[in-house]
Amino acid sequence: MNGAQSLVRTLAAGGIEVCFTNPGTSELHVVAALDQLGDIRCVLGLFEGVVTGAADGYARMTERPAFTLLHLGPGLANGLANLHNARRARVPIVNIVGQHAIAHQQYDTPLSSNIEAIALPFSKWLRTSNDTSRLGRDAAEAIVAARAKNGQIATLIVPADVAWKEGGAISETSHSPHPPMPSVDRVEHAAAILRSGRKTAILIGGKALYGSGLRAAGRIANATDAKLFAPYPFARIERGPVSPVVERVAYICEQAVEQFKEFRQLILVGALAPLPYFAHPTKSIAIAPTECEIHKLAGPEEDCIGALESVADSLGLRQGAASPALKVDQRGPSVGDIAKGEITTRGVAAAVAALLPENAIVVDESMTSGRELMPATQGSLHHDWLGNTGGSIGIAMPLAVGAAIACPERRVLCFSADGSGMYTNQALWTMSREGLNITTVIFANRAYAVLKREFSNFSLGNPGPLACDLFDIGRPDLDWVALAKGMGVPGARVTSLEEFAKILRKGFETDGPTLIEVPL
Amino acid sequence: MNGAQSLVRTLAAGGIEVCFTNPGTSELHVVAALDQLGDIRCVLGLFEGVVTGAADGYARMTERPAFTLLHLGPGLANGLANLHNARRARVPIVNIVGQHAIAHQQYDTPLSSNIEAIALPFSKWLRTSNDTSRLGRDAAEAIVAARAKNGQIATLIVPADVAWKEGGAISETSHSPHPPMPSVDRVEHAAAILRSGRKTAILIGGKALYGSGLRAAGRIANATDAKLFAPYPFARIERGPVSPVVERVAYICEQAVEQFKEFRQLILVGALAPLPYFAHPTKSIAIAPTECEIHKLAGPEEDCIGALESVADSLGLRQGAASPALKVDQRGPSVGDIAKGEITTRGVAAAVAALLPENAIVVDESMTSGRELMPATQGSLHHDWLGNTGGSIGIAMPLAVGAAIACPERRVLCFSADGSGMYTNQALWTMSREGLNITTVIFANRAYAVLKREFSNFSLGNPGPLACDLFDIGRPDLDWVALAKGMGVPGARVTSLEEFAKILRKGFETDGPTLIEVPL
Repeated sequence: MNGAQSLVRTLAAGGIEVCFTNPGTSELHVVAALDQLGDIRCVLGLFEGVVTGAADGYARMTERPAFTLLHLGPGLANGLANLHNARRARVPIVNIVGQHAIAHQQYDTPLSSNIEAIALPFSKWLRTSNDTSRLGRDAAEAIVAARAKNGQIATLIVPADVAWKEGGAISETSHSPHPPMPSVDRVEHAAAILRSGRKTAILIGGKALYGSGLRAAGRIANATDAKLFAPYPFARIERGPVSPVVERVAYICEQAVEQFKEFRQLILVGALAPLPYFAHPTKSIAIAPTECEIHKLAGPEEDCIGALESVADSLGLRQGAASPALKVDQRGPSVGDIAKGEITTRGVAAAVAALLPENAIVVDESMTSGRELMPATQGSLHHDWLGNTGGSIGIAMPLAVGAAIACPERRVLCFSADGSGMYTNQALWTMSREGLNITTVIFANRAYAVLKREFSNFSLGNPGPLACDLFDIGRPDLDWVALAKGMGVPGARVTSLEEFAKILRKGFETDGPTLIEVPL
Repeated sequence: MNGAQSLVRTLAAGGIEVCFTNPGTSELHVVAALDQLGDIRCVLGLFEGVVTGAADGYARMTERPAFTLLHLGPGLANGLANLHNARRARVPIVNIVGQHAIAHQQYDTPLSSNIEAIALPFSKWLRTSNDTSRLGRDAAEAIVAARAKNGQIATLIVPADVAWKEGGAISETSHSPHPPMPSVDRVEHAAAILRSGRKTAILIGGKALYGSGLRAAGRIANATDAKLFAPYPFARIERGPVSPVVERVAYICEQAVEQFKEFRQLILVGALAPLPYFAHPTKSIAIAPTECEIHKLAGPEEDCIGALESVADSLGLRQGAASPALKVDQRGPSVGDIAKGEITTRGVAAAVAALLPENAIVVDESMTSGRELMPATQGSLHHDWLGNTGGSIGIAMPLAVGAAIACPERRVLCFSADGSGMYTNQALWTMSREGLNITTVIFANRAYAVLKREFSNFSLGNPGPLACDLFDIGRPDLDWVALAKGMGVPGARVTSLEEFAKILRKGFETDGPTLIEVPL
């Protein structure tokens, strides 16, 4: 067995089922091993930002390590921005990056680069495998590392000759250590302040925003009148009529201050204290009021689900106790709510809320155009909502690819701003090739609108023609229907809300991907 | 004057005329300063791979530092692959990368990353400017560094508060040190072996492939019967009826061996000894015959032009002495040579050769489909030919953008393989916005054909369905005419050689960009 075969078989034995990739010459022996084994599905992206973003989406939905195969330093470099987002999402990813054969590295041939240095800022675990007999073991350890601490990025660099030489051995993947529980003191202090009667916010990140963690948070909120929040950059929230209501912290600092002003206690569960993305020359960066006591129940690398369940236990709230029910004015949206006529972001949000299929996965990089979407869909049928965790734009369509591959039985609804969507537009091709049930909605405001707002927020005056040209991405207008057609995805541009609703519904009912351009 | 103003004015005073950019919030004070000054043209790319690739093309054609403005770690990360190519092209680039305000960096907010670590593998000069009063001086030093050693990448990281604080000062840019001349011994040894009468090849890289360096090489070749070669990955070659003939080293190792087998002496001028891109499990990597003496006249960081001129002087060859004339069988191609009927790569090459406008700039990332282009155009009207120096695909269209902005009076003809083109397809939008006279020819073989060949070269057998799916990028076929339309570029798919010739000619005669999809 050569090294590549031991690598691929170790990965398969360790639970890897999908390979997101754009391989090159230095990875061909790994490709051959994948080809021979046939057990790992290979998904090609026409650019590595698609590959790493899809890996992120897959890992968010399966909670298992996603596997990427990348070509040397440049292939890895192209995937870094979405690895930045994935790192912030704390998802488990195993990157296998090809390297020149060891003896060849001294020659500094054109594709040579310092791959370890490129990987380091985005990898919690990093190793170059320089011995064929160890490659299987290195791969198994990469999986273990990826699963540790609630999910990490592990990068294993594989020189071509280490892959092609004989002497490989399949290695068994051991269990990853369970993330540590926070101390009893922290649990008891959380329970105590929740009993105090002071207005309490619970800010939750990571895996506690869905499943049993969210249910425990819901029991706590229901019993104590605490309010649940998610950071603006969250990875995944479970939502629906019977899910606890979680409010997202606003991106705009003044709105976030407003959200927190009534609270005197803030409990952090797998999330850092809320802060604006950017500093401002004169404004304070404080979001929580100064008189608000901040208590860290669990850090992002600790067992947040266990922490919430322990607090619920300490409060005497058993599993099965009721979660906060929706209030009467939060009844589920209905088709009757869909407005007609001119397109507005509010009208689009209402249509989405009414038509969202049960168990949909919503991927949201709608930026300034989509701020009404989450409130509007609060009472929609059960769904998961995935966000941009690291602020590096170009995540939505790749993330949707990965989520759709992870959950073929679920519909994916992907919102992308036009500026963000252009970063990784190649994802549309993978949607088409794989026949993924993804409806992509492009909010075409033809601008980096957030920059216009920040320019004004920084009191930089009215932007002149040069600055305006850097914020406006019209001239020429992007034609997303043509772009989608170019990559094999049927698309439509809508001119009214009823048309939007009609095409959205049709998209949900049709096999394969669809794109809807919504001019704003 | 705030820091941003001192930065921008220092750059302008240092000769910077164009800013290639995709800025974000952390760079808005720099944008405001550019906006106020108005002297630096700003060119927006909808993805940073376009920004850095365009900077490379601009620097290759102007021989002056290109300036990019990038958004934090992720913006820089997206530009790294084309910075890898630019580093290999040894072009001068000054990257200004925004960073969070110094006091904000401690909070590890979502867009935070270790920008210095991200920049390091691709920057020969790297600094974070942490003092407003020093920012101008840092920018001036970045320009000096970029121009040094025949061209380097200099990256200056600018925290937002360093940019927005008052106390900036414009700094004067000093001269960059001239690249050192090789020793007299190396010059005299080169002249001596050229006089020996043994078969000699001269392998030239960098700036000696055009202008006075190439003319000196031509005089030497003409007088001594030496043959001139360029590495496969060259930055820029000047070509035409009165330019010395330079043969490119073949990408395919066996062909390269064939090219060098007759030579007993090889003189290196700004180029490394020829080697294959990749090692092979069993084949030798030697290209030059073992009995060939290799003499390094000048290294890539030395004065290659001066070295060649000194050798010519030593051989008594004055400036103005004749260059090797084209032989009779290398007469210029003519319109009469254009074949009709079914599209072939040879037929496309013949049409290009006949129709290439005088002083055109050809950008070539045609990969496997374009191997006939350089031989066919050997006798075409005067032109420059730009290649992919680092092997990271996705360079052609961005490079064409930068070359067209550098040389608005020249026509740019851009060849891209379909797989390569998808990497940075967003460049089409910038071509349209800026009204650039670029004709882009997409060779649509619907495959990563080089990988198919290498798979066979590695004796990996017939690829099975899984491997085939990673090499074929059909299913669905990319529709490049639709993609171009989506970004505002008129395009056509051609089905015969006469149609190709007709549309190529029309493209050359029309203002603004055009795209031609050539299905193969």
